[in-house]
Amino acid sequence: MAQTLGLVLVTGSNRGIGLGLVKRFLELPNPPKWIFATTREIPLRGRELQKDVSESPVLSVDVTDPNSIKAAAQKVEEHVQGHGLNLLINNAGILRVTTMENENAETMGIVYLTNTVGPLLVSQEFLPLLKKAAQQSTQTGLSCSKAAILNMSSTTGSIEVVPVWEFRKIPSYRCSKAALNMVTKCLSLEYKDCGILCTSIHPGWVKTRMGTEAALQTVEETTKAILKMLSTFSEKENGSFIGWDGQIYPW
Amino acid sequence: MAQTLGLVLVTGSNRGIGLGLVKRFLELPNPPKWIFATTREIPLRGRELQKDVSESPVLSVDVTDPNSIKAAAQKVEEHVQGHGLNLLINNAGILRVTTMENENAETMGIVYLTNTVGPLLVSQEFLPLLKKAAQQSTQTGLSCSKAAILNMSSTTGSIEVVPVWEFRKIPSYRCSKAALNMVTKCLSLEYKDCGILCTSIHPGWVKTRMGTEAALQTVEETTKAILKMLSTFSEKENGSFIGWDGQIYPW
Repeated sequence: MAQTLGLVLVTGSNRGIGLGLVKRFLELPNPPKWIFATTREIPLRGRELQKDVSESPVLSVDVTDPNSIKAAAQKVEEHVQGHGLNLLINNAGILRVTTMENENAETMGIVYLTNTVGPLLVSQEFLPLLKKAAQQSTQTGLSCSKAAILNMSSTTGSIEVVPVWEFRKIPSYRCSKAALNMVTKCLSLEYKDCGILCTSIHPGWVKTRMGTEAALQTVEETTKAILKMLSTFSEKENGSFIGWDGQIYPW
Repeated sequence: MAQTLGLVLVTGSNRGIGLGLVKRFLELPNPPKWIFATTREIPLRGRELQKDVSESPVLSVDVTDPNSIKAAAQKVEEHVQGHGLNLLINNAGILRVTTMENENAETMGIVYLTNTVGPLLVSQEFLPLLKKAAQQSTQTGLSCSKAAILNMSSTTGSIEVVPVWEFRKIPSYRCSKAALNMVTKCLSLEYKDCGILCTSIHPGWVKTRMGTEAALQTVEETTKAILKMLSTFSEKENGSFIGWDGQIYPW
Protein backbone atom coordinates (compact mmCIF):
# COMPACT_ATOMS: atom_id res chain seq x y z
CA MET A 1 0.00 0.00 0.00
CA ALA A 2 1.26 3.43 -0.94
CA GLN A 3 -0.02 4.85 2.34
CA THR A 4 -0.25 3.10 5.67
CA LEU A 5 -3.76 2.10 6.61
CA GLY A 6 -5.13 2.78 10.04
CA LEU A 7 -7.97 0.33 10.33
CA VAL A 8 -9.03 -2.63 8.19
CA LEU A 9 -11.86 -5.10 8.77
CA VAL A 10 -12.29 -8.37 6.85
CA THR A 11 -15.44 -10.50 7.22
CA GLY A 12 -15.27 -14.28 6.88
CA SER A 13 -11.59 -14.39 7.72
CA ASN A 14 -11.49 -17.74 9.50
CA ARG A 15 -10.14 -19.44 6.36
CA GLY A 16 -9.60 -19.10 2.60
CA ILE A 17 -9.31 -15.72 0.94
CA GLY A 18 -10.43 -13.81 4.06
CA LEU A 19 -7.69 -15.32 6.22
CA GLY A 20 -5.20 -14.85 3.37
CA LEU A 21 -6.03 -11.15 3.12
CA VAL A 22 -5.56 -10.66 6.88
CA LYS A 23 -2.17 -12.42 6.73
CA ARG A 24 -1.02 -10.32 3.75
CA PHE A 25 -1.96 -7.11 5.59
CA LEU A 26 0.07 -8.31 8.59
CA GLU A 27 3.09 -9.02 6.35
CA LEU A 28 3.18 -5.48 4.92
CA PRO A 29 6.31 -3.45 5.82
CA ASN A 30 3.93 -0.97 7.43
CA PRO A 31 0.92 -3.05 8.43
CA PRO A 32 -2.37 -1.33 9.35
CA LYS A 33 -2.60 -0.17 12.96
CA TRP A 34 -5.61 -2.47 13.49
CA ILE A 35 -6.81 -5.39 11.41
CA PHE A 36 -10.08 -6.82 12.62
CA ALA A 37 -10.61 -10.42 11.52
CA THR A 38 -14.22 -11.54 11.80
CA THR A 39 -15.81 -14.98 11.74
CA ARG A 40 -19.20 -16.38 12.67
CA GLU A 41 -17.39 -19.44 14.06
CA ILE A 42 -15.92 -17.99 17.24
CA PRO A 43 -16.92 -20.95 19.40
CA LEU A 44 -15.39 -23.40 16.93
CA ARG A 45 -12.47 -21.64 15.35
CA GLY A 46 -11.90 -18.40 17.25
CA ARG A 47 -8.79 -19.59 19.12
CA GLU A 48 -7.20 -21.06 16.01
CA LEU A 49 -7.93 -17.90 14.03
CA GLN A 50 -6.48 -15.76 16.82
CA LYS A 51 -3.24 -17.75 16.53
CA ASP A 52 -3.22 -17.19 12.76
CA VAL A 53 -3.76 -13.46 12.91
CA SER A 54 -1.31 -12.74 15.71
CA GLU A 55 -2.33 -9.77 17.88
CA SER A 56 -5.14 -8.62 15.58
CA PRO A 57 -8.54 -8.46 17.21
CA VAL A 58 -10.87 -11.33 16.30
CA LEU A 59 -14.59 -10.55 16.36
CA SER A 60 -17.69 -12.68 16.07
CA VAL A 61 -19.80 -11.55 13.11
CA ASP A 62 -22.64 -13.45 11.51
CA VAL A 63 -23.44 -11.30 8.46
CA THR A 64 -26.98 -12.74 8.35
CA ASP A 65 -27.72 -11.37 11.83
CA PRO A 66 -28.16 -7.57 12.11
CA ASN A 67 -27.64 -7.66 15.91
CA SER A 68 -24.32 -9.46 15.51
CA ILE A 69 -23.11 -6.82 13.01
CA LYS A 70 -24.28 -3.99 15.28
CA ALA A 71 -22.45 -5.48 18.28
CA ALA A 72 -19.24 -5.84 16.22
CA ALA A 73 -19.38 -2.23 15.04
CA GLN A 74 -19.73 -1.10 18.67
CA LYS A 75 -16.74 -3.22 19.72
CA VAL A 76 -14.59 -1.82 16.89
CA GLU A 77 -15.59 1.72 17.84
CA GLU A 78 -14.67 1.15 21.51
CA HIS A 79 -11.35 -0.44 20.49
CA VAL A 80 -10.12 2.25 18.10
CA GLN A 81 -11.24 5.25 20.17
CA GLY A 82 -12.09 7.91 17.61
CA HIS A 83 -10.33 6.48 14.57
CA GLY A 84 -12.28 5.76 11.39
CA LEU A 85 -12.43 2.56 9.36
CA ASN A 86 -10.34 2.83 6.20
CA LEU A 87 -11.09 -0.44 4.53
CA LEU A 88 -14.06 -2.80 4.90
CA ILE A 89 -13.71 -6.05 2.96
CA ASN A 90 -17.04 -7.86 2.66
CA ASN A 91 -15.56 -11.28 2.06
CA ALA A 92 -17.90 -13.63 3.97
CA GLY A 93 -19.96 -15.73 1.57
CA ILE A 94 -21.43 -19.16 1.01
CA LEU A 95 -21.95 -21.47 -1.94
CA ARG A 96 -24.55 -24.21 -2.27
CA VAL A 97 -23.94 -26.54 -5.19
CA THR A 98 -27.30 -26.49 -6.99
CA THR A 99 -28.70 -27.09 -10.46
CA MET A 100 -31.54 -25.41 -12.35
CA GLU A 101 -33.74 -28.36 -11.42
CA ASN A 102 -33.06 -28.70 -7.69
CA GLU A 103 -32.71 -24.99 -6.84
CA ASN A 104 -35.33 -24.00 -4.28
CA ALA A 105 -36.66 -21.08 -2.26
CA GLU A 106 -34.75 -22.02 0.88
CA THR A 107 -31.32 -22.15 -0.78
CA MET A 108 -32.03 -19.05 -2.86
CA GLY A 109 -32.96 -17.23 0.36
CA ILE A 110 -30.03 -18.20 2.57
CA VAL A 111 -27.41 -17.64 -0.15
CA TYR A 112 -28.89 -14.20 -0.93
CA LEU A 113 -29.07 -13.29 2.75
CA THR A 114 -25.40 -14.18 3.26
CA ASN A 115 -23.82 -13.03 -0.02
CA THR A 116 -25.93 -9.96 -0.88
CA VAL A 117 -27.89 -8.71 2.13
CA GLY A 118 -24.97 -9.36 4.52
CA PRO A 119 -22.52 -7.01 2.75
CA LEU A 120 -25.22 -4.31 2.54
CA LEU A 121 -26.02 -4.58 6.27
CA VAL A 122 -22.33 -4.63 7.26
CA SER A 123 -21.68 -1.56 5.09
CA GLN A 124 -24.66 0.29 6.63
CA GLU A 125 -23.49 -0.49 10.16
CA PHE A 126 -19.86 0.53 9.57
CA LEU A 127 -20.82 3.61 7.55
CA PRO A 128 -20.25 6.10 10.41
CA LEU A 129 -16.70 4.72 10.88
CA LEU A 130 -16.02 4.81 7.12
CA LYS A 131 -17.26 8.42 6.94
CA LYS A 132 -15.04 9.27 9.89
CA ALA A 133 -11.98 7.82 8.11
CA ALA A 134 -12.80 9.82 4.97
CA GLN A 135 -13.13 13.02 7.04
CA GLN A 136 -9.88 12.33 8.93
CA SER A 137 -7.95 11.78 5.70
CA THR A 138 -5.95 14.57 4.10
CA GLN A 139 -6.07 12.80 0.72
CA THR A 140 -8.16 14.20 -2.12
CA GLY A 141 -10.31 11.92 -4.25
CA LEU A 142 -11.10 8.31 -3.50
CA SER A 143 -8.71 5.54 -2.45
CA CYS A 144 -8.57 2.35 -0.38
CA SER A 145 -6.24 4.02 2.09
CA LYS A 146 -8.80 6.82 2.66
CA ALA A 147 -12.11 4.96 2.96
CA ALA A 148 -13.34 2.03 0.89
CA ILE A 149 -15.66 -0.97 0.75
CA LEU A 150 -14.54 -3.98 -1.29
CA ASN A 151 -17.20 -6.59 -2.01
CA MET A 152 -15.85 -10.04 -2.79
CA SER A 153 -17.85 -10.96 -5.86
CA SER A 154 -17.24 -13.51 -8.62
CA THR A 155 -17.40 -13.59 -12.41
CA THR A 156 -20.01 -16.33 -11.94
CA GLY A 157 -22.15 -13.30 -11.01
CA SER A 158 -21.55 -11.71 -14.41
CA ILE A 159 -24.87 -11.93 -16.33
CA GLU A 160 -23.00 -11.06 -19.54
CA VAL A 161 -20.37 -13.79 -19.19
CA VAL A 162 -22.03 -16.59 -17.09
CA PRO A 163 -18.74 -18.51 -17.06
CA VAL A 164 -18.23 -22.25 -16.42
CA TRP A 165 -21.95 -22.88 -17.00
CA GLU A 166 -21.58 -26.55 -17.89
CA PHE A 167 -19.25 -27.12 -14.93
CA ARG A 168 -21.42 -25.52 -12.22
CA LYS A 169 -24.94 -24.14 -12.66
CA ILE A 170 -25.31 -22.78 -9.07
CA PRO A 171 -28.22 -20.35 -9.81
CA SER A 172 -28.57 -19.27 -6.15
CA TYR A 173 -24.89 -18.28 -6.03
CA ARG A 174 -24.90 -16.59 -9.45
CA CYS A 175 -28.03 -14.58 -8.58
CA SER A 176 -26.58 -13.54 -5.21
CA LYS A 177 -23.35 -12.29 -6.80
CA ALA A 178 -25.18 -10.43 -9.61
CA ALA A 179 -27.25 -8.75 -6.89
CA LEU A 180 -24.09 -8.07 -4.84
CA ASN A 181 -22.69 -6.26 -7.86
CA MET A 182 -25.81 -4.09 -7.77
CA VAL A 183 -25.14 -3.42 -4.06
CA THR A 184 -21.61 -2.33 -5.03
CA LYS A 185 -22.96 0.03 -7.68
CA CYS A 186 -25.56 1.50 -5.29
CA LEU A 187 -22.97 2.02 -2.53
CA SER A 188 -20.56 3.61 -5.02
CA LEU A 189 -23.21 6.11 -6.15
CA GLU A 190 -24.52 6.88 -2.68
CA TYR A 191 -21.27 7.41 -0.79
CA LYS A 192 -18.72 8.76 -3.31
CA ASP A 193 -19.52 12.30 -2.16
CA CYS A 194 -18.67 11.22 1.42
CA GLY A 195 -15.23 10.11 0.13
CA ILE A 196 -15.95 6.37 0.20
CA LEU A 197 -14.94 4.15 -2.73
CA CYS A 198 -16.78 0.90 -3.44
CA THR A 199 -15.75 -1.85 -5.86
CA SER A 200 -16.60 -5.50 -6.61
CA ILE A 201 -13.62 -7.84 -6.75
CA HIS A 202 -13.40 -11.14 -8.63
CA PRO A 203 -10.71 -13.14 -6.80
CA GLY A 204 -10.23 -15.69 -9.59
CA TRP A 205 -10.55 -19.43 -9.07
CA VAL A 206 -8.72 -20.08 -5.82
CA LYS A 207 -7.72 -23.26 -3.93
CA THR A 208 -10.10 -22.82 -0.98
CA ARG A 209 -12.83 -24.99 0.47
CA MET A 210 -15.25 -23.22 -1.90
CA GLY A 211 -12.91 -23.21 -4.92
CA THR A 212 -11.73 -26.82 -4.36
CA GLU A 213 -8.17 -28.16 -4.81
CA ALA A 214 -8.69 -28.22 -8.60
CA ALA A 215 -8.58 -24.40 -8.67
CA LEU A 216 -5.88 -22.54 -10.58
CA GLN A 217 -4.50 -20.11 -7.97
CA THR A 218 -3.27 -20.36 -4.41
CA VAL A 219 -4.71 -18.15 -1.68
CA GLU A 220 -1.29 -16.55 -1.29
CA GLU A 221 -0.86 -15.44 -4.90
CA THR A 222 -4.48 -14.25 -5.13
CA THR A 223 -4.39 -12.21 -1.94
CA LYS A 224 -0.97 -10.73 -2.76
CA ALA A 225 -2.33 -9.63 -6.15
CA ILE A 226 -5.48 -8.15 -4.58
CA LEU A 227 -3.49 -6.16 -2.00
CA LYS A 228 -1.18 -4.79 -4.69
CA MET A 229 -4.12 -3.92 -6.93
CA LEU A 230 -6.27 -2.19 -4.34
CA SER A 231 -3.42 0.17 -3.50
CA THR A 232 -3.87 1.61 -7.02
CA PHE A 233 -7.66 2.21 -6.86
CA SER A 234 -8.95 5.75 -7.39
CA GLU A 235 -12.21 7.36 -8.56
CA LYS A 236 -11.82 5.47 -11.85
CA GLU A 237 -12.43 2.12 -10.12
CA ASN A 238 -15.39 3.33 -8.04
CA GLY A 239 -18.49 1.27 -8.86
CA SER A 240 -16.68 -1.22 -11.06
CA PHE A 241 -16.09 -4.99 -11.21
CA ILE A 242 -12.39 -5.84 -11.21
CA GLY A 243 -10.57 -9.14 -11.30
CA TRP A 244 -7.54 -10.01 -9.12
CA ASP A 245 -5.54 -9.60 -12.35
CA GLY A 246 -6.75 -6.00 -12.80
CA GLN A 247 -9.14 -6.94 -15.63
CA ILE A 248 -12.50 -5.12 -15.72
CA TYR A 249 -15.45 -7.50 -16.08
CA PRO A 250 -18.88 -6.73 -17.58
CA TRP A 251 -21.87 -6.96 -15.27
CA MET B 1 -48.70 -12.70 -33.24
CA ALA B 2 -47.62 -14.35 -36.48
CA GLN B 3 -48.90 -17.71 -35.26
CA THR B 4 -51.84 -18.40 -33.01
CA LEU B 5 -50.85 -19.35 -29.49
CA GLY B 6 -52.43 -22.30 -27.78
CA LEU B 7 -51.81 -21.58 -24.13
CA VAL B 8 -50.56 -18.45 -22.31
CA LEU B 9 -50.19 -17.87 -18.56
CA VAL B 10 -49.58 -14.46 -16.97
CA THR B 11 -48.76 -14.12 -13.26
CA GLY B 12 -49.84 -11.06 -11.31
CA SER B 13 -52.61 -10.26 -13.76
CA ASN B 14 -55.11 -8.76 -11.32
CA ARG B 15 -54.08 -5.24 -12.34
CA GLY B 16 -51.48 -3.13 -14.15
CA ILE B 17 -49.28 -4.60 -16.85
CA GLY B 18 -50.34 -8.20 -16.12
CA LEU B 19 -54.03 -7.41 -16.61
CA GLY B 20 -53.18 -5.29 -19.66
CA LEU B 21 -51.30 -8.20 -21.26
CA VAL B 22 -54.21 -10.59 -20.69
CA LYS B 23 -56.63 -8.07 -22.26
CA ARG B 24 -54.38 -7.54 -25.28
CA PHE B 25 -54.16 -11.30 -25.84
CA LEU B 26 -57.96 -11.49 -25.72
CA GLU B 27 -58.24 -8.68 -28.29
CA LEU B 28 -56.08 -10.46 -30.88
CA PRO B 29 -57.87 -11.45 -34.10
CA ASN B 30 -56.91 -15.02 -33.23
CA PRO B 31 -56.61 -15.04 -29.45
CA PRO B 32 -54.84 -17.93 -27.68
CA LYS B 33 -57.04 -20.98 -27.01
CA TRP B 34 -56.46 -20.56 -23.27
CA ILE B 35 -55.17 -17.55 -21.35
CA PHE B 36 -54.68 -18.25 -17.67
CA ALA B 37 -54.71 -15.09 -15.56
CA THR B 38 -53.22 -15.61 -12.11
CA THR B 39 -53.42 -13.52 -8.96
CA ARG B 40 -52.64 -14.12 -5.31
CA GLU B 41 -55.71 -12.05 -4.44
CA ILE B 42 -58.50 -14.50 -5.38
CA PRO B 43 -60.51 -13.84 -2.22
CA LEU B 44 -60.34 -10.08 -2.75
CA ARG B 45 -60.23 -9.53 -6.47
CA GLY B 46 -60.92 -12.87 -8.14
CA ARG B 47 -64.50 -12.06 -9.21
CA GLU B 48 -63.58 -8.64 -10.55
CA LEU B 49 -60.62 -10.09 -12.45
CA GLN B 50 -62.83 -12.85 -13.88
CA LYS B 51 -65.14 -10.13 -15.26
CA ASP B 52 -62.14 -8.34 -16.80
CA VAL B 53 -60.71 -11.40 -18.50
CA SER B 54 -63.97 -12.76 -19.84
CA GLU B 55 -64.07 -16.55 -20.10
CA SER B 56 -60.32 -17.01 -19.41
CA PRO B 57 -59.55 -19.19 -16.41
CA VAL B 58 -58.45 -17.27 -13.30
CA LEU B 59 -56.10 -19.11 -10.95
CA SER B 60 -54.81 -18.35 -7.48
CA VAL B 61 -51.01 -18.19 -7.49
CA ASP B 62 -48.79 -16.78 -4.77
CA VAL B 63 -45.34 -16.88 -6.40
CA THR B 64 -43.70 -16.90 -2.95
CA ASP B 65 -45.44 -20.18 -2.07
CA PRO B 66 -44.14 -23.33 -3.85
CA ASN B 67 -47.33 -25.28 -2.98
CA SER B 68 -49.53 -22.62 -4.54
CA ILE B 69 -47.48 -22.74 -7.77
CA LYS B 70 -47.57 -26.55 -7.82
CA ALA B 71 -51.35 -26.57 -7.36
CA ALA B 72 -51.80 -24.07 -10.22
CA ALA B 73 -49.63 -26.14 -12.59
CA GLN B 74 -51.77 -29.18 -11.82
CA LYS B 75 -54.98 -27.25 -12.49
CA VAL B 76 -53.65 -25.93 -15.81
CA GLU B 77 -52.62 -29.45 -16.82
CA GLU B 78 -56.07 -30.84 -15.98
CA HIS B 79 -57.74 -28.01 -17.88
CA VAL B 80 -55.76 -28.22 -21.13
CA GLN B 81 -55.69 -32.02 -21.36
CA GLY B 82 -52.40 -32.80 -23.08
CA HIS B 83 -51.61 -29.38 -24.54
CA GLY B 84 -48.35 -27.67 -23.70
CA LEU B 85 -47.78 -24.13 -22.38
CA ASN B 86 -46.53 -21.81 -25.13
CA LEU B 87 -45.92 -18.65 -23.19
CA LEU B 88 -45.27 -18.08 -19.51
CA ILE B 89 -45.09 -14.41 -18.51
CA ASN B 90 -43.55 -13.98 -15.06
CA ASN B 91 -45.07 -10.59 -14.37
CA ALA B 92 -45.92 -10.72 -10.64
CA GLY B 93 -43.62 -8.44 -8.67
CA ILE B 94 -43.49 -6.04 -5.75
CA LEU B 95 -41.73 -2.77 -4.97
CA ARG B 96 -40.88 -1.39 -1.56
CA VAL B 97 -39.81 2.24 -1.58
CA THR B 98 -36.53 2.15 0.32
CA THR B 99 -33.32 4.14 0.60
CA MET B 100 -29.71 3.07 1.16
CA GLU B 101 -30.12 3.99 4.81
CA ASN B 102 -33.42 2.30 5.69
CA GLU B 103 -33.05 -0.83 3.55
CA ASN B 104 -33.12 -3.92 5.77
CA ALA B 105 -32.91 -7.71 5.71
CA GLU B 106 -36.67 -8.19 5.85
CA THR B 107 -37.44 -6.00 2.82
CA MET B 108 -34.46 -7.34 0.89
CA GLY B 109 -35.74 -10.88 1.56
CA ILE B 110 -39.41 -10.46 0.65
CA VAL B 111 -38.69 -8.45 -2.52
CA TYR B 112 -36.12 -11.05 -3.66
CA LEU B 113 -38.48 -13.93 -2.86
CA THR B 114 -41.27 -12.36 -4.92
CA ASN B 115 -39.34 -10.80 -7.84
CA THR B 116 -36.47 -13.28 -8.30
CA VAL B 117 -37.18 -16.59 -6.59
CA GLY B 118 -40.87 -16.56 -7.63
CA PRO B 119 -40.18 -16.47 -11.40
CA LEU B 120 -37.58 -19.25 -11.00
CA LEU B 121 -40.01 -21.47 -9.06
CA VAL B 122 -42.89 -20.80 -11.48
CA SER B 123 -40.62 -21.62 -14.43
CA GLN B 124 -39.46 -24.86 -12.78
CA GLU B 125 -43.03 -25.95 -12.08
CA PHE B 126 -44.35 -25.17 -15.57
CA LEU B 127 -41.26 -26.61 -17.30
CA PRO B 128 -42.91 -29.93 -18.24
CA LEU B 129 -45.76 -28.02 -19.95
CA LEU B 130 -43.31 -25.69 -21.72
CA LYS B 131 -41.27 -28.68 -22.93
CA LYS B 132 -44.47 -30.31 -24.16
CA ALA B 133 -45.37 -27.18 -26.16
CA ALA B 134 -41.89 -27.14 -27.73
CA GLN B 135 -42.21 -30.82 -28.66
CA GLN B 136 -45.72 -30.34 -30.08
CA SER B 137 -44.58 -27.41 -32.24
CA THR B 138 -43.63 -27.93 -35.88
CA GLN B 139 -41.60 -24.67 -35.86
CA THR B 140 -37.81 -24.77 -36.01
CA GLY B 141 -35.72 -22.52 -33.75
CA LEU B 142 -37.01 -20.52 -30.82
CA SER B 143 -40.08 -18.29 -30.68
CA CYS B 144 -42.77 -17.07 -28.29
CA SER B 145 -45.42 -19.00 -30.22
CA LYS B 146 -43.46 -22.24 -29.73
CA ALA B 147 -42.38 -22.10 -26.07
CA ALA B 148 -41.08 -19.12 -24.10
CA ILE B 149 -40.63 -17.55 -20.69
CA LEU B 150 -40.74 -13.76 -20.44
CA ASN B 151 -39.53 -12.28 -17.15
CA MET B 152 -40.86 -8.80 -16.43
CA SER B 153 -37.70 -7.00 -15.37
CA SER B 154 -36.82 -3.29 -15.25
CA THR B 155 -33.93 -1.10 -16.30
CA THR B 156 -33.67 -0.18 -12.61
CA GLY B 157 -32.13 -3.69 -12.45
CA SER B 158 -29.40 -2.70 -14.93
CA ILE B 159 -26.14 -2.50 -12.95
CA GLU B 160 -24.52 -0.68 -15.86
CA VAL B 161 -27.18 2.02 -16.14
CA VAL B 162 -28.73 2.35 -12.60
CA PRO B 163 -31.27 4.83 -13.95
CA VAL B 164 -33.27 7.42 -11.97
CA TRP B 165 -30.90 7.02 -9.00
CA GLU B 166 -31.66 10.37 -7.41
CA PHE B 167 -35.39 9.88 -7.89
CA ARG B 168 -35.67 6.39 -6.34
CA LYS B 169 -32.86 4.45 -4.65
CA ILE B 170 -34.90 1.23 -3.98
CA PRO B 171 -31.87 -1.09 -3.46
CA SER B 172 -34.05 -4.14 -2.65
CA TYR B 173 -35.94 -3.74 -5.94
CA ARG B 174 -32.82 -3.03 -8.00
CA CYS B 175 -31.01 -6.06 -6.53
CA SER B 176 -34.02 -8.31 -7.14
CA LYS B 177 -34.28 -7.26 -10.80
CA ALA B 178 -30.51 -7.63 -11.40
CA ALA B 179 -30.80 -11.14 -9.96
CA LEU B 180 -33.94 -11.80 -12.04
CA ASN B 181 -31.89 -10.93 -15.12
CA MET B 182 -29.44 -13.63 -14.01
CA VAL B 183 -32.39 -16.05 -13.70
CA THR B 184 -33.33 -15.16 -17.30
CA LYS B 185 -29.79 -15.82 -18.49
CA CYS B 186 -29.60 -19.15 -16.63
CA LEU B 187 -33.00 -20.29 -17.99
CA SER B 188 -31.99 -19.25 -21.51
CA LEU B 189 -28.79 -21.32 -21.34
CA GLU B 190 -30.38 -24.34 -19.69
CA TYR B 191 -33.50 -24.76 -21.82
CA LYS B 192 -32.63 -23.47 -25.29
CA ASP B 193 -31.88 -27.05 -26.39
CA CYS B 194 -35.40 -28.03 -25.26
CA GLY B 195 -36.77 -25.34 -27.60
CA ILE B 196 -37.65 -22.81 -24.88
CA LEU B 197 -36.77 -19.13 -25.30
CA CYS B 198 -36.23 -16.88 -22.26
CA THR B 199 -35.92 -13.09 -22.22
CA SER B 200 -36.06 -10.23 -19.72
CA ILE B 201 -38.46 -7.43 -20.64
CA HIS B 202 -38.26 -3.80 -19.51
CA PRO B 203 -41.84 -2.49 -19.77
CA GLY B 204 -40.85 1.17 -19.55
CA TRP B 205 -42.29 3.57 -17.00
CA VAL B 206 -45.99 2.77 -16.93
CA LYS B 207 -49.03 4.37 -15.25
CA THR B 208 -49.73 1.55 -12.77
CA ARG B 209 -49.96 1.43 -8.99
CA MET B 210 -46.20 0.72 -8.97
CA GLY B 211 -45.29 3.21 -11.70
CA THR B 212 -47.61 5.98 -10.33
CA GLU B 213 -49.72 8.40 -12.35
CA ALA B 214 -46.61 10.46 -13.15
CA ALA B 215 -45.36 7.69 -15.46
CA LEU B 216 -44.89 8.28 -19.18
CA GLN B 217 -46.80 5.41 -20.76
CA THR B 218 -50.28 3.95 -20.42
CA VAL B 219 -50.77 0.25 -19.74
CA GLU B 220 -52.50 -0.06 -23.10
CA GLU B 221 -49.66 1.35 -25.23
CA THR B 222 -47.03 -0.59 -23.28
CA THR B 223 -48.80 -3.93 -23.49
CA LYS B 224 -49.67 -3.44 -27.18
CA ALA B 225 -45.99 -2.75 -27.89
CA ILE B 226 -44.85 -5.78 -25.86
CA LEU B 227 -47.27 -8.13 -27.69
CA LYS B 228 -46.13 -6.82 -31.06
CA MET B 229 -42.47 -7.13 -30.08
CA LEU B 230 -42.62 -10.64 -28.65
CA SER B 231 -44.10 -11.96 -31.90
CA THR B 232 -40.73 -11.13 -33.51
CA PHE B 233 -38.48 -12.90 -30.96
CA SER B 234 -36.18 -15.67 -32.22
CA GLU B 235 -32.88 -17.26 -31.07
CA LYS B 236 -31.28 -13.83 -31.31
CA GLU B 237 -33.33 -12.52 -28.39
CA ASN B 238 -32.80 -15.59 -26.18
CA GLY B 239 -31.06 -14.60 -22.93
CA SER B 240 -31.27 -10.87 -23.56
CA PHE B 241 -32.74 -7.79 -21.88
CA ILE B 242 -35.15 -5.93 -24.16
CA GLY B 243 -37.23 -2.81 -23.63
CA TRP B 244 -40.88 -2.44 -24.71
CA ASP B 245 -39.48 -0.21 -27.49
CA GLY B 246 -37.25 -3.04 -28.79
CA GLN B 247 -34.07 -1.48 -27.38
CA ILE B 248 -31.47 -3.90 -25.96
CA TYR B 249 -30.28 -2.88 -22.46
CA PRO B 250 -26.93 -3.69 -20.84
CA TRP B 251 -27.02 -5.87 -17.71
